[in-house]
Amino acid sequence: MEKADVLIIGGSAAGIVTGMTARKHYKEVKITIIRKEREGQVLIPCGLPYIFGTVGAPEKNIIPDTLLTANNIDLIVGEATSIDREAKTVTTARGKSIGYKKLVLATGAAPIIIPIPGIKLENVFYAIKDVDYLNGLLKTLDGVKDVVIIGGGFIGLEFGDEFRKRGLNITIIEMLPHCLQLVLDEDFCTLAENKLKEKGINTKTNARVDAILGEKRVTGVKLAGGEELKADLVFMCIGARPETELAQKAGLQIGETKGIWVDEYNRTSDKDIFAVGDCAEKRSFFTKKPSALRLASIAANEGRIVGANLLELRRRNEGTIGSFATTIGDLGIGMAGLSEAGAKAAGFDFVTSEVKTPDKHPSSIPGAKELRMKLMFEKASHEILGGEVCGGSTVGETVNILAALIQNRMTANEVATFQYGTHPFLTPSPIPYPIANAAEAALVKLRCFTPL
Amino acid sequence: MEKADVLIIGGSAAGIVTGMTARKHYKEVKITIIRKEREGQVLIPCGLPYIFGTVGAPEKNIIPDTLLTANNIDLIVGEATSIDREAKTVTTARGKSIGYKKLVLATGAAPIIIPIPGIKLENVFYAIKDVDYLNGLLKTLDGVKDVVIIGGGFIGLEFGDEFRKRGLNITIIEMLPHCLQLVLDEDFCTLAENKLKEKGINTKTNARVDAILGEKRVTGVKLAGGEELKADLVFMCIGARPETELAQKAGLQIGETKGIWVDEYNRTSDKDIFAVGDCAEKRSFFTKKPSALRLASIAANEGRIVGANLLELRRRNEGTIGSFATTIGDLGIGMAGLSEAGAKAAGFDFVTSEVKTPDKHPSSIPGAKELRMKLMFEKASHEILGGEVCGGSTVGETVNILAALIQNRMTANEVATFQYGTHPFLTPSPIPYPIANAAEAALVKLRCFTPL
Repeated sequence: MEKADVLIIGGSAAGIVTGMTARKHYKEVKITIIRKEREGQVLIPCGLPYIFGTVGAPEKNIIPDTLLTANNIDLIVGEATSIDREAKTVTTARGKSIGYKKLVLATGAAPIIIPIPGIKLENVFYAIKDVDYLNGLLKTLDGVKDVVIIGGGFIGLEFGDEFRKRGLNITIIEMLPHCLQLVLDEDFCTLAENKLKEKGINTKTNARVDAILGEKRVTGVKLAGGEELKADLVFMCIGARPETELAQKAGLQIGETKGIWVDEYNRTSDKDIFAVGDCAEKRSFFTKKPSALRLASIAANEGRIVGANLLELRRRNEGTIGSFATTIGDLGIGMAGLSEAGAKAAGFDFVTSEVKTPDKHPSSIPGAKELRMKLMFEKASHEILGGEVCGGSTVGETVNILAALIQNRMTANEVATFQYGTHPFLTPSPIPYPIANAAEAALVKLRCFTPL
Repeated sequence: MEKADVLIIGGSAAGIVTGMTARKHYKEVKITIIRKEREGQVLIPCGLPYIFGTVGAPEKNIIPDTLLTANNIDLIVGEATSIDREAKTVTTARGKSIGYKKLVLATGAAPIIIPIPGIKLENVFYAIKDVDYLNGLLKTLDGVKDVVIIGGGFIGLEFGDEFRKRGLNITIIEMLPHCLQLVLDEDFCTLAENKLKEKGINTKTNARVDAILGEKRVTGVKLAGGEELKADLVFMCIGARPETELAQKAGLQIGETKGIWVDEYNRTSDKDIFAVGDCAEKRSFFTKKPSALRLASIAANEGRIVGANLLELRRRNEGTIGSFATTIGDLGIGMAGLSEAGAKAAGFDFVTSEVKTPDKHPSSIPGAKELRMKLMFEKASHEILGGEVCGGSTVGETVNILAALIQNRMTANEVATFQYGTHPFLTPSPIPYPIANAAEAALVKLRCFTPL
């Protein structure tokens, strides 16, 4: 029987980074990944929407298998169907058994399917990480005109923005009052919605889908109020559920948000089995309570934790900050940490401050866009809880600066004297640099100095 | 006699940010700035080079005076010529006296002028922050063809890149073996030099200018080896010296790098007089020893420290990290903290690690560029000492992430689990995200784990 020191089930971001990190920490161990995808068929998860407008084909959105070969990680293509925790073996659909010393579950998540009428009609699609499936979608898109996207989270918006580049009529249906409302506050949601409008993408918020219409193939969507929308294709993006079947069959504990329960070292209820990425339960960095955030960047971060912890406990998972950014057209929008709504729900008392400044300086530099930033600080400790950013192409790394400030639990006073650098083409001006200035504005609200 | 609670001499980045910050911290005080520049004539310092190619005119590169009015800061246009520390007054060239409770010197720096033959010829120019002077340079550039820039630091390169956009023949003369060598390590200097070459900009390194040639007007430059270069215009950028005349006349202590000596609260040797920005002595964040770094972003940072400290000591200056970025064409290049050379000179024992990855993902996203990053960690503490970055338009804010990691003295292990977010258009992929991966690579060199 084949035997690995470290056996990883799942070959997307979480599994790969776990393997790569394990190789850096444990030079001599035998590391094996079992995954369903054939060679050269693992898709970049965050790149999925961009296949349909910018990138052009699933084959151009692949995580190279050289990451495995370069790190001396063995690959078994197959489906793991059961775990024998006593014998410490995993069995595949073809009956192959592989032994392990340490097992890592990186089984990911799958799109949520809701049992509404018409859900099984032809031309109902999902964000499924499968090259053949996505090629099918790509081909189908060539023959359609009206697309309804159900779910106005950032994945729905990204698919909408890319589908629109094909000249399709797009309507995004969102149950909440605003698109992106699960992650951003209303004011920032509105900035995104305005950009969707500018791009000719329709949104219907506060709207619930009662049924997908059609005989064999989709012809429309019926909303709760009775309104019917014409549709040749429906794209479902209402979220993902952790893939935990294998873990459950093996008797591993499941957490509150339906992920595989893990301790602060990302070990499951079996200390020789770790879970990582979308399939694993997460905790909030701020409250340590279960969190339903699932992102490729979080998966990669956990891969770095688990890869280090496999044979000795070397890294603690301090909980998920939640840093993300997206784009709609030339608008970049993102956040790190808690939104106002999230902070309120968690029970924090906080102040916010908001600033606007051009993202290059002077503002006459070609391509300069307004950068809008809101920061939030906890009242008693003055620690930064979160930030939202809207601007252009620097929003992604600007969000990551905020993530670094949050990870270090910096106070408003420390953030106000953050030692950034600046350049006319690359950053806002040193004078109104938004992070420092938003922190300074928050301090005015936070402190109670004696007047002089 | 007019009297201010806070009197600031100098109206560029350091002076303005000091005033803005003082207003946030001390709501009721009277704040006055004395400066030489007339209304609407204060230039954005980092924008100077871009006047000559991208922006088009000094008038389009102005710090708006609304920053003063919005913060209720009074403006006196004039030249401060003496300080009476006993009477606590400042006198201007026109004989006006202004009293102060607290005085802030934000007098800046001026280009270094070297006494070589020909230095006073017509068409020898400097980076002088004066609208009329720069309009003169702009006009002169219309009539010339061959330009020699003396000094291959980042300001020289920025002017070279912009002058080149006017179709001029540019040669940059640098004394050291490489351009940018005072800030970057050789490998990163070479990346910049290759880009200069691609842009058709000539460089002569290891070269010293013996004389500027010409009768009345510049006709050429003579190098130490005897070589003569044709030149219609010479642009001098060999550095700046702090403007400390006023301070010296007032008997204030001067520091080792010729800046006005300041304590850790940016107070001069007179506790009622602060110094901030280019005129003030700086200390290294790493060694606390005097440092000759002068940047607008550092000036702004010190302005935030001094503005808070004026009437109570509220912020300590922990020393200058040194975060900066520049561009040559579409290449972004920058660094935060120490270079290898700087770390060696300071006496640190360290390891470096270097990674390369596309700055978008997949690399087939239009506009994706290779991002190259080197990080450095101190051997005993594992703390990050510095990082150099080369890539595209996200280099500026990427450098600022490094600055945040450095300011928090994060260890390689902490940096490896930094919780960044990612997006295909905005950042590298979560799997090879360069900051985390470079830290992980450094850890391989840093640690001495028992093999398992």
